[in-house]
Amino acid sequence: MRIAVFRKAHFNAAHRLHNPDWTKEQNEAVFGICNNYNYHGHNYELEVKVTGEVDKDTGYLIDIKSLKELIYEEIELRLDHKNLNLDVPEFKNLNPTAENICYVIWNILRDKLDAKYELTVRLYETPRNYVEYWGE
Amino acid sequence: MRIAVFRKAHFNAAHRLHNPDWTKEQNEAVFGICNNYNYHGHNYELEVKVTGEVDKDTGYLIDIKSLKELIYEEIELRLDHKNLNLDVPEFKNLNPTAENICYVIWNILRDKLDAKYELTVRLYETPRNYVEYWGE
Amino acid sequence: MRIAVFRKAHFNAAHRLHNPDWTKEQNEAVFGICNNYNYHGHNYELEVKVTGEVDKDTGYLIDIKSLKELIYEEIELRLDHKNLNLDVPEFKNLNPTAENICYVIWNILRDKLDAKYELTVRLYETPRNYVEYWGE
Amino acid sequence: MRIAVFRKAHFNAAHRLHNPDWTKEQNEAVFGICNNYNYHGHNYELEVKVTGEVDKDTGYLIDIKSLKELIYEEIELRLDHKNLNLDVPEFKNLNPTAENICYVIWNILRDKLDAKYELTVRLYETPRNYVEYWGE
Amino acid sequence: MRIAVFRKAHFNAAHRLHNPDWTKEQNEAVFGICNNYNYHGHNYELEVKVTGEVDKDTGYLIDIKSLKELIYEEIELRLDHKNLNLDVPEFKNLNPTAENICYVIWNILRDKLDAKYELTVRLYETPRNYVEYWGE
Amino acid sequence: MRIAVFRKAHFNAAHRLHNPDWTKEQNEAVFGICNNYNYHGHNYELEVKVTGEVDKDTGYLIDIKSLKELIYEEIELRLDHKNLNLDVPEFKNLNPTAENICYVIWNILRDKLDAKYELTVRLYETPRNYVEYWGE
Repeated sequence: MRIAVFRKAHFNAAHRLHNPDWTKEQNEAVFGICNNYNYHGHNYELEVKVTGEVDKDTGYLIDIKSLKELIYEEIELRLDHKNLNLDVPEFKNLNPTAENICYVIWNILRDKLDAKYELTVRLYETPRNYVEYWGE
Repeated sequence: MRIAVFRKAHFNAAHRLHNPDWTKEQNEAVFGICNNYNYHGHNYELEVKVTGEVDKDTGYLIDIKSLKELIYEEIELRLDHKNLNLDVPEFKNLNPTAENICYVIWNILRDKLDAKYELTVRLYETPRNYVEYWGE
Repeated sequence: MRIAVFRKAHFNAAHRLHNPDWTKEQNEAVFGICNNYNYHGHNYELEVKVTGEVDKDTGYLIDIKSLKELIYEEIELRLDHKNLNLDVPEFKNLNPTAENICYVIWNILRDKLDAKYELTVRLYETPRNYVEYWGE
Repeated sequence: MRIAVFRKAHFNAAHRLHNPDWTKEQNEAVFGICNNYNYHGHNYELEVKVTGEVDKDTGYLIDIKSLKELIYEEIELRLDHKNLNLDVPEFKNLNPTAENICYVIWNILRDKLDAKYELTVRLYETPRNYVEYWGE
Repeated sequence: MRIAVFRKAHFNAAHRLHNPDWTKEQNEAVFGICNNYNYHGHNYELEVKVTGEVDKDTGYLIDIKSLKELIYEEIELRLDHKNLNLDVPEFKNLNPTAENICYVIWNILRDKLDAKYELTVRLYETPRNYVEYWGE
Repeated sequence: MRIAVFRKAHFNAAHRLHNPDWTKEQNEAVFGICNNYNYHGHNYELEVKVTGEVDKDTGYLIDIKSLKELIYEEIELRLDHKNLNLDVPEFKNLNPTAENICYVIWNILRDKLDAKYELTVRLYETPRNYVEYWGE
């Protein structure tokens, strides 16, 4: 019996979209107001989907408390109330677009999650803009 | 032309997570406050996804009124305002975790739904914790 | 400068509507499925509104972290994952309708909150049914 | 690195479900109140999902501003504040069920979207009834 | 003990904003796309707020089942899946703006609701546009 | 006939809570992670409530298109994708707490809105934390 379990979490962060290899004009042309030199920010909503086999004894796919704690320890502590460009080493040389943040989160969680589970991460930058990555 | 139709429904129920083969200490260690002897409860939100071919004459995959009634007759009448552990025979010997409730709902609907449709059931226990089962 | 600050929290609980002075028939006639002997439950969503004067030094009406902790200590620990009828002394002789739960929560918070603040409590039993009490 | 980007949009429209090859009685039996001669309407919520490879230079799968504009130009201007049956040529001979509206939207966007992207369209007719089409 | 109880309901309707005393040009200038000759429509979300004294025996302000039925009988049956301009006598000579629909609903409910209750009606035309009327 | 009209809008911004008259230690003790030197950010959701008399000819309290444009011109252009501390003159000497941002928005809109209308502004910093100011 294969099932998927979803857990939602959130974090609030500042960021700025910028490619250091480009001129100021190129950056403004591509990233528009998202290139604002002084940063802007979002309430990021995170959905973590874990897929696998249900344990007969517990009736759980995964203990959701442990999943919640994993997300808190590895993602919220790292990203919440941070400036993604300045405070988070993963974005030193990586533009913090929703796509790249989602990719970074997936990789962090993938390393910590038992290999028997499949993992998909969805990240809402706003209620109308969101991305999903599944490690393909 | 293959399409999916989704219908949402909800029910309010009490439950308690408990494995009768375990000691009191084991149950508390694994299920924590969800093991409370006197039960607690949830507003369960249910999403039923049906996939198949659109009918040319109606432009419907399935008459959503009939799907709504099926969910009402088979799921809401069985589970709404019930104690899942005490009032619902399916959980006599099955721990009513979100995973197992989702599995039970899928099986009930699968039996009643025309075999030409694929079926996926998503069950929200809270807005932040939910599960999905597709009969794999 | 008078302002209102709102903080949301939630708890999951089982309950049953019942008047011990009435017959079984009267209880069923008035409370219907909410009278189920074995209880049912809800995800209660709580909105606490505090009104008063903004502090010039902090720019805060109230430190929302302290409000969050107050709600956690006094309400969530008392009501979350509980059976309101059996586990919560306040409902020993008080029917746990949404109205009465809201009244009990307001009184608990009113006792702990600085008298300089006005207090309003809104309680969602479901997304479509909710109540509000302001101590009038 | 394959990823999916989602963008939400909405439009408000009137419609009526009706099969001109059927009698009045057949139409009423199948479509019920949705067959109302004078139309009724909805706030349609649209979710467009685009899947493909992330561009290394931008960190984008697709410029979401250009996706937002595409949806505005091709879908909102065509359908918003319209009577689907009377004002939209695509439904001259096609019953505007949620299934068929979703199919029409998918085809319009598919024509305009770079072939390197996969496309899925989800359409909410109400928060409880929605459909999804992926061009299979 | 004074309290407020809220109940949500919804209906789907077509409408058109139009003042018959004005020219075509005036109507288009003021109402824009809402003046579309062939109508458009909305999922109207209705919030009914009833205020009064809690009954000691039931712990209810009002039996929410009876409030739900009142809204169904008097509002949903009258407005759901209707063309407000053509099918609803109240809008024969009254422009169905959100303001006027809210006013009409308030008056219908006020006539049927026990005079001991205060009544406020909020009507969402879209999730971003809504109005409230309290009979002042 | 007195009525209230609500319009929602949103903006994404970075900010940092900080009192320049305090030491680093005092700022960290009071503002915690919200004091992060490099800023963090939010999706601010704004609800503007306007109260007054309905116009008989239009059936409008206020043309919601003009209210939408007013909010766009005066609030979104000023605050969206900005660093509130660095980019917005109003917060040069004012700590950008939710309370103070709400107060600033109210004052900007109050100046531009016809004096015949009453005005209330609600500002959501997150879905669980929000404030309301009405100019008292």
